[in-house]
Amino acid sequence: MGNVTVDMSMSLDGFITGANASAALPLGEGGDRLHQWLYNLESWRKRHGMEGGERNPDADIFEDAFKNVGAVVMGRNMFNHAVKAWGDNPPFRVPVFVVTHEQGEPVTRKGDTTFTFVTSGFHQALVQAKAAAGDKDVSIAGGANIIQQFFSAGLIDEIQVHIAPILLGKGRRLFQYIGGQSVELQRLWAVESPCVSHLKYRVVKA
Amino acid sequence: MGNVTVDMSMSLDGFITGANASAALPLGEGGDRLHQWLYNLESWRKRHGMEGGERNPDADIFEDAFKNVGAVVMGRNMFNHAVKAWGDNPPFRVPVFVVTHEQGEPVTRKGDTTFTFVTSGFHQALVQAKAAAGDKDVSIAGGANIIQQFFSAGLIDEIQVHIAPILLGKGRRLFQYIGGQSVELQRLWAVESPCVSHLKYRVVKA
Repeated sequence: MGNVTVDMSMSLDGFITGANASAALPLGEGGDRLHQWLYNLESWRKRHGMEGGERNPDADIFEDAFKNVGAVVMGRNMFNHAVKAWGDNPPFRVPVFVVTHEQGEPVTRKGDTTFTFVTSGFHQALVQAKAAAGDKDVSIAGGANIIQQFFSAGLIDEIQVHIAPILLGKGRRLFQYIGGQSVELQRLWAVESPCVSHLKYRVVKA
Repeated sequence: MGNVTVDMSMSLDGFITGANASAALPLGEGGDRLHQWLYNLESWRKRHGMEGGERNPDADIFEDAFKNVGAVVMGRNMFNHAVKAWGDNPPFRVPVFVVTHEQGEPVTRKGDTTFTFVTSGFHQALVQAKAAAGDKDVSIAGGANIIQQFFSAGLIDEIQVHIAPILLGKGRRLFQYIGGQSVELQRLWAVESPCVSHLKYRVVKA
């Protein structure tokens, strides 16, 4: 059985999206800055259908984060905001389950990415994603609201944050409200790179 | 001229105090957990008038954080909540300026700690603290509100956070509202230790 994971780039003040995110600006105002560490990595570029780029510890961490993912769960807003930006060949390459109130036919893209719309809630989306992932992990891709629902329900096993050296000041916080209970973490690693700090944790279940 | 610095233990979800902080519970519910990495360090114990403890990289980082501090600024709530816990021999050992609306006579304690009450605002507290610190740094000790006022006014030069492996879920966030503008940071170091991740940044001024 795989893990349920979260892997996000975050500002030091806790934001994963800038203010006023939309289809025209999927990461919100200044949100691009959080992902800057990725754009020149060979592993990131390859996953987005581009050649070249750097091989370095950041590239390895990005590659590792995707390597064991067998399925993805995301919220409808994230899908709506980003589906255009992902284009014909989205970076997921696995089944994606979109939690939504609106029914819709599955969307199939190049490179084994399929988007399936789940209208029966985030628990049910996880059940379907686990079935699709088999022994591999299910990654909860965002946005912040859906990640917080999974945290509140105690369903996350591992979390990695890549802390970008910026205070964004406004936008969506990764941990805005996770149910008001404290959650003990066991740190798996902390890796310093020139642009970002990678911190990975396992959630300690009671 | 020294720097204006902030040095705080923080949960991964951004809290520096748990909920319902008071004089009876200065760090709030669960807030003690954020400082757990400190309590057995030789340098921390020495500063709190205790013997023994461990010498390790965490102890060095704690010692370094205090070494160049020539004066401290804090808010009235922090003073009210913690003055009893600090006792006769508070850990500061330098002049402390308390931003408050209530006038009061200075309070002198053992070990060169004096508390001076400043009723003319946080800018004026900083002026007095800088004069007292000379070439050394002024540390903005908290609580969260006063630190946010200093950030909003662009007055912080360096920030170090010690990220504890816990999601606290509620309490006071270090960066709840810093004025809505983004602030670029230059990371000075990231140090992994068994209990905590130390991240130190310089604020990039426009």
